[in-house]
Amino acid sequence: MILLTRKAEFSSSHYYWSDQLSPEENVRLFGKCANRNGHGHNYTLEVTVEGEVDPVSGFVVDLKELKEVIHREVVDVYDHRHLNLEVPEFKHVIPTTENLAIAIWKRLENQIEGAKLHRIRIYEKPDLFSDYYGEA
Amino acid sequence: MILLTRKAEFSSSHYYWSDQLSPEENVRLFGKCANRNGHGHNYTLEVTVEGEVDPVSGFVVDLKELKEVIHREVVDVYDHRHLNLEVPEFKHVIPTTENLAIAIWKRLENQIEGAKLHRIRIYEKPDLFSDYYGEA
Amino acid sequence: MILLTRKAEFSSSHYYWSDQLSPEENVRLFGKCANRNGHGHNYTLEVTVEGEVDPVSGFVVDLKELKEVIHREVVDVYDHRHLNLEVPEFKHVIPTTENLAIAIWKRLENQIEGAKLHRIRIYEKPDLFSDYYGEA
Amino acid sequence: MILLTRKAEFSSSHYYWSDQLSPEENVRLFGKCANRNGHGHNYTLEVTVEGEVDPVSGFVVDLKELKEVIHREVVDVYDHRHLNLEVPEFKHVIPTTENLAIAIWKRLENQIEGAKLHRIRIYEKPDLFSDYYGEA
Amino acid sequence: MILLTRKAEFSSSHYYWSDQLSPEENVRLFGKCANRNGHGHNYTLEVTVEGEVDPVSGFVVDLKELKEVIHREVVDVYDHRHLNLEVPEFKHVIPTTENLAIAIWKRLENQIEGAKLHRIRIYEKPDLFSDYYGEA
Amino acid sequence: MILLTRKAEFSSSHYYWSDQLSPEENVRLFGKCANRNGHGHNYTLEVTVEGEVDPVSGFVVDLKELKEVIHREVVDVYDHRHLNLEVPEFKHVIPTTENLAIAIWKRLENQIEGAKLHRIRIYEKPDLFSDYYGEA
Repeated sequence: MILLTRKAEFSSSHYYWSDQLSPEENVRLFGKCANRNGHGHNYTLEVTVEGEVDPVSGFVVDLKELKEVIHREVVDVYDHRHLNLEVPEFKHVIPTTENLAIAIWKRLENQIEGAKLHRIRIYEKPDLFSDYYGEA
Repeated sequence: MILLTRKAEFSSSHYYWSDQLSPEENVRLFGKCANRNGHGHNYTLEVTVEGEVDPVSGFVVDLKELKEVIHREVVDVYDHRHLNLEVPEFKHVIPTTENLAIAIWKRLENQIEGAKLHRIRIYEKPDLFSDYYGEA
Repeated sequence: MILLTRKAEFSSSHYYWSDQLSPEENVRLFGKCANRNGHGHNYTLEVTVEGEVDPVSGFVVDLKELKEVIHREVVDVYDHRHLNLEVPEFKHVIPTTENLAIAIWKRLENQIEGAKLHRIRIYEKPDLFSDYYGEA
Repeated sequence: MILLTRKAEFSSSHYYWSDQLSPEENVRLFGKCANRNGHGHNYTLEVTVEGEVDPVSGFVVDLKELKEVIHREVVDVYDHRHLNLEVPEFKHVIPTTENLAIAIWKRLENQIEGAKLHRIRIYEKPDLFSDYYGEA
Repeated sequence: MILLTRKAEFSSSHYYWSDQLSPEENVRLFGKCANRNGHGHNYTLEVTVEGEVDPVSGFVVDLKELKEVIHREVVDVYDHRHLNLEVPEFKHVIPTTENLAIAIWKRLENQIEGAKLHRIRIYEKPDLFSDYYGEA
Repeated sequence: MILLTRKAEFSSSHYYWSDQLSPEENVRLFGKCANRNGHGHNYTLEVTVEGEVDPVSGFVVDLKELKEVIHREVVDVYDHRHLNLEVPEFKHVIPTTENLAIAIWKRLENQIEGAKLHRIRIYEKPDLFSDYYGEA
């Protein structure tokens, strides 16, 4: 069993705001992230799959297919978009790095042919990232 | 004479849209950057100053002061903001990397004590950046 | 359950020297690291916490609080310091990357509100790092 | 117990080609990687060992010895070589990142004095890497 | 006047060998780079153009067009190729980083619409690169 | 004419302290850098040489010789040393990044066979560096 990880990038806007909190609580909790005009990031995504190495191809998973799946399911949907306003899973869920990791897991979980999704890592900035391994 | 460069970072939203172009022309020219909901980046700024090394301090410029100026004049104004909607110089100027470099030059040009501003470099993403050296 | 990682940096001096070894043994074992004048590094610290995502905030842990704890407990104590001479836990313990990981774990273990410390990773240089997950 | 990771680099040529596939199948599966003239990469290797910290030295493993082993067993054999043509384990095994991770594990598994090999990570490019933890 | 730089990457094989030198001289001068089986690198290319900022678009040069030109003229020709064996300009010229910078300059010099090529920077590895500014 | 740049790294201790200033003035000017126990950095050095490409070798300068000169003149003298206490040029000159750039220029200026030293760039940290081009 071996793990293979492929990175991808997307650039999006978001803000942090909960309708369950008062405006004052939003500002206290989220600070400048609560600005409703939005701010943005260059996100870096790492998708890790696990599986057996195919003895003929030497691959766990076909690299071209993996890249296509990541782009079709995630990058094409998130890139150059406002996550809160344009991506359905963030209509009522705040697009924190934690929630991005979970949402991307759900988008990719059943899409990898012949291997198992092992981990989603998402960097919001080079000094902040989340890891999600699915439900135990 | 020596050059000293200090980096800083900010995360902002923007979009590319010109009122001098039709909606169709905006989309043709700017592609997915024309999305009016905005998208965003982690910008990396390099501010380079030139001057003589002070024989006592060994500094071209006081590092703490340089850092404060960059934050007061640029980072505090741009970070976690929507550049088109909240930063006055981009009300009628598209915040491309080229125009960001020029705008940051103007903000810093007369603010560096005891040294001369030499270059503004701004990365929109790790693979795209602009350099501005002021008017010749 | 999800993991969140935040990086921080500090610049410190240290040397490798054991009073349980003769000077010759120290030099043989530690080479140029045994220089008692000290040498130094830009350390990069990764603090990983694990927990449940709060359904309102979307956070495992409040990012501002996490940053404050890391600075108060580690960066403010280690940064611009000589680890052997000024940091109590290295009076009789050599500040190798391994021992730094363990010491930082102990400093942070009981300080993270609402989440569990999962891993300390510390880079001495970009090509050398240690990971510590606490006592099993 | 603690983990220590050391990086190393090597620059090699390779191609992807299986004699069990027809030329057309090789091209369909491997695309431009099937070019028999070869192409190449700057590989980055991370070797992680696990063990107890020696109370005198503060080391899991002697860093100079670890570096020597990595160079003797891997870098000296792979660097500036054509992996398919000059490295015996890739005579009949395609040097994908997955197979490189397994091959390097086998080369290092019994060579680390006083610690256990924990993980081999190999980057073919900054956006593609494999991890191998040995046979479970 | 402003400078805009865009990066691109390609992975190629090469070797260093001059027919004007004896085999012994080739080995003495080029060391392990003289291995005729070839070795390879992940090259990073920086293409810098200079020009005026268009007052409507905010661009020095259309980014999509610049990217297309770099791919058509350089990446599609060099990537996953053996530079000595498959790229015409290196049939009798050794593909050192210096010669790569000059060759890429010639490929791009007259291809940039509306701006002037300013500099070619090419990294063979993260710690080695060449810059070429054209004939003075 | 072409430029070739090679990087090297060294890890050193230093402090900022001027005997021409009172202790209070040193602390006010240099802050935590004035700590006489010292602190340290992983320095990254870029040495850029300029010259003509040799038509036989394809080199501006022999890479092995350039690497040897950088190590003999700079890395072997600075690495794992306390710059103020052990490196002669910093006995009475504060080892700021500016002064390091000038000192390294002087060490290398007349040591490059067949090419001209063009620029010394020295990073104290990834976000702070100095450039020196010699006396005009």
